[in-house]
Amino acid sequence: MSADEEKARAWAYLARVAEPPHTGMRELVEAVGPCEAAAAIRARRVPAGFDGVLGATAARSAVDTTGDLDRAAAVGARLITPDDEEWPGWQLWGLRGADTAERGGPPLVLWVRGGRSLAAEVGKSIGVVGSRSSTSYGEYVTGQLVGGIVDVGWSVVSGGAFGIDGVAHRACLGSGGSTVAVLACGIDVDYPASHASLFAAVARDGLIVSEYPPGTTAARHRFLTRNRLVAALSSAVVVVEAGRRSGAANTAAWARKLGRPLGAVPGPVTSAMSVGCNRMIADEQAALIVDSQSLISLAAPDGAGGPTDGPARRIDALTGDRQRVYEALPGRGSITVDEIAVSAGVGASAVMAALAMLEVDGYVTAVGDGWAIVRD
Amino acid sequence: MSADEEKARAWAYLARVAEPPHTGMRELVEAVGPCEAAAAIRARRVPAGFDGVLGATAARSAVDTTGDLDRAAAVGARLITPDDEEWPGWQLWGLRGADTAERGGPPLVLWVRGGRSLAAEVGKSIGVVGSRSSTSYGEYVTGQLVGGIVDVGWSVVSGGAFGIDGVAHRACLGSGGSTVAVLACGIDVDYPASHASLFAAVARDGLIVSEYPPGTTAARHRFLTRNRLVAALSSAVVVVEAGRRSGAANTAAWARKLGRPLGAVPGPVTSAMSVGCNRMIADEQAALIVDSQSLISLAAPDGAGGPTDGPARRIDALTGDRQRVYEALPGRGSITVDEIAVSAGVGASAVMAALAMLEVDGYVTAVGDGWAIVRD
Repeated sequence: MSADEEKARAWAYLARVAEPPHTGMRELVEAVGPCEAAAAIRARRVPAGFDGVLGATAARSAVDTTGDLDRAAAVGARLITPDDEEWPGWQLWGLRGADTAERGGPPLVLWVRGGRSLAAEVGKSIGVVGSRSSTSYGEYVTGQLVGGIVDVGWSVVSGGAFGIDGVAHRACLGSGGSTVAVLACGIDVDYPASHASLFAAVARDGLIVSEYPPGTTAARHRFLTRNRLVAALSSAVVVVEAGRRSGAANTAAWARKLGRPLGAVPGPVTSAMSVGCNRMIADEQAALIVDSQSLISLAAPDGAGGPTDGPARRIDALTGDRQRVYEALPGRGSITVDEIAVSAGVGASAVMAALAMLEVDGYVTAVGDGWAIVRD
Repeated sequence: MSADEEKARAWAYLARVAEPPHTGMRELVEAVGPCEAAAAIRARRVPAGFDGVLGATAARSAVDTTGDLDRAAAVGARLITPDDEEWPGWQLWGLRGADTAERGGPPLVLWVRGGRSLAAEVGKSIGVVGSRSSTSYGEYVTGQLVGGIVDVGWSVVSGGAFGIDGVAHRACLGSGGSTVAVLACGIDVDYPASHASLFAAVARDGLIVSEYPPGTTAARHRFLTRNRLVAALSSAVVVVEAGRRSGAANTAAWARKLGRPLGAVPGPVTSAMSVGCNRMIADEQAALIVDSQSLISLAAPDGAGGPTDGPARRIDALTGDRQRVYEALPGRGSITVDEIAVSAGVGASAVMAALAMLEVDGYVTAVGDGWAIVRD
């Protein structure tokens, strides 16, 4: 076995022997390297100060991980580590400060399925997340947002779940964009099962990412752990729909903790699926997002410009006497200058001056002895 | 003619002879009193410094206003002035600082239709405004908000227009509450005409208010002028729906200018009628309002408490080993402590400790040699 192979097997062992993320495990590997760390754990004898690793690995230290690399390869996946060029070190750096009690440290390794470079994919990326129980409103808005993200050449990161996540991935692929699905199970596990063909498509045109070894099943605590990676691997995060309690709110909390710009799409106050989004906006935790332009601006404030105003309604341009005179004119037919003066409360000479200006601008026209509005 | 009668007639004359509001007119009346002011304008000879009043009254100085008080009385209305007890002087005070170029000064007089005291009605009141082209969403939310406002004994101020305004008045009356309609025409003019029966009902159980003399027709500039009074007579203002350009946005701008708390109801980003509200929230001009409780809190921060959280989902209470152990249990059937230890990545003794706690709390139960989830 070559040194590289030995190292890869050590990483694979370390990736499974403790439930990730585990700060002590990461620190041990950083201190002695993966091979020595793996040997120490197997021998149940770790350097002083790393006793926590023994406890964390007690249940699984004898686990057989020799097949993990092959299982990954069988689905076109690989194991990447901080030693690899495609390791998104910059994006994951913020997690080092997170408390492990919150399952917050950086991943020890990542399993990546798909042909692209992870670091390249998440260089400019937006996390699009939301409720599993999405409504047609949320799904429509997701499609609109994702289309705009793809148009500017960014990628879309999400969690591969039912609802908004799935719509985000599909819309991205459908728009010819690149998408990254971060799973709470192994990269070879189709969870939810009905997303199997979606995951195959994501692996083909984007990437599937997980810190869990092949075959790992989804579990509640892993969803929470996974959410931090969705936030970390995104330049900004938008929550499209979220109920009162929602995993998306957890991802949003991670985005804030990691300093990622956070947006939320407002929705009807009558919709249970917009309660979380409306609340995040009300509490000023998230910026209000109405379209992809506002989302891109949030992610890259120096990039695309702000929204532009449409053409002003013609009559809005009128002020002062001109407005009052114009308003004094009847909808149909015409009236005299004196009648306008009384109705508008403007002196006759001022009325005439205003009418002259209004005529030049095409608002009014003289009709016999009186004046009438010019209809568009 | 008694002195009171003479004074009332002078006020009525002054109310019509210049298009309100007019700062010079108000200052002239404050300086010399209504009778002398009226005589001076009729004679076209005003004190030095009030020349602007001559221009503003040039077109109408010979107008006959002798019938205005009778026309008001015929519909159960009266003219009130700063001399009257029911004059809402405190609410209107902020308008003194507003630039008249913005039609912003306090009203010279108010015509009031209905049996109640205006000052009492607007002591605790919320302005509920919105688009004329309301959607069923906006109308539903308006009803919900107004119901909550009535429940705490506050009144509802609006502009009597189609759409949200009309729904607000109707919902208020329908809930047994008191409502104030501020019109952009005379208090005896049913504009819009199809709101005639609504106005009759408002006059019976609330008040109709206008600074325009009886018979004055609605005009665009009067809507803008009227909007400042809706804001001034409200303790807080909420915009339920507003398009890109909307009179409601003008009322909202007045609320901000006058220091009234301003709220807006978010809506679908796909709805043209929520564009204005979502933008006000995004620009942090308006607080996001989801229900009447958040609205009342906005208007009276020391009053009703904030929203309460519903009961937590049971499983949300679990953390650490207990959460991981619980999640390792299968949906159906049971597994052993050792199986749990491997699946959860928790040592066997810790698994047993966690199971004991979970059993006490009713989450799990022992089944033969294994453990199973207790279903609700």
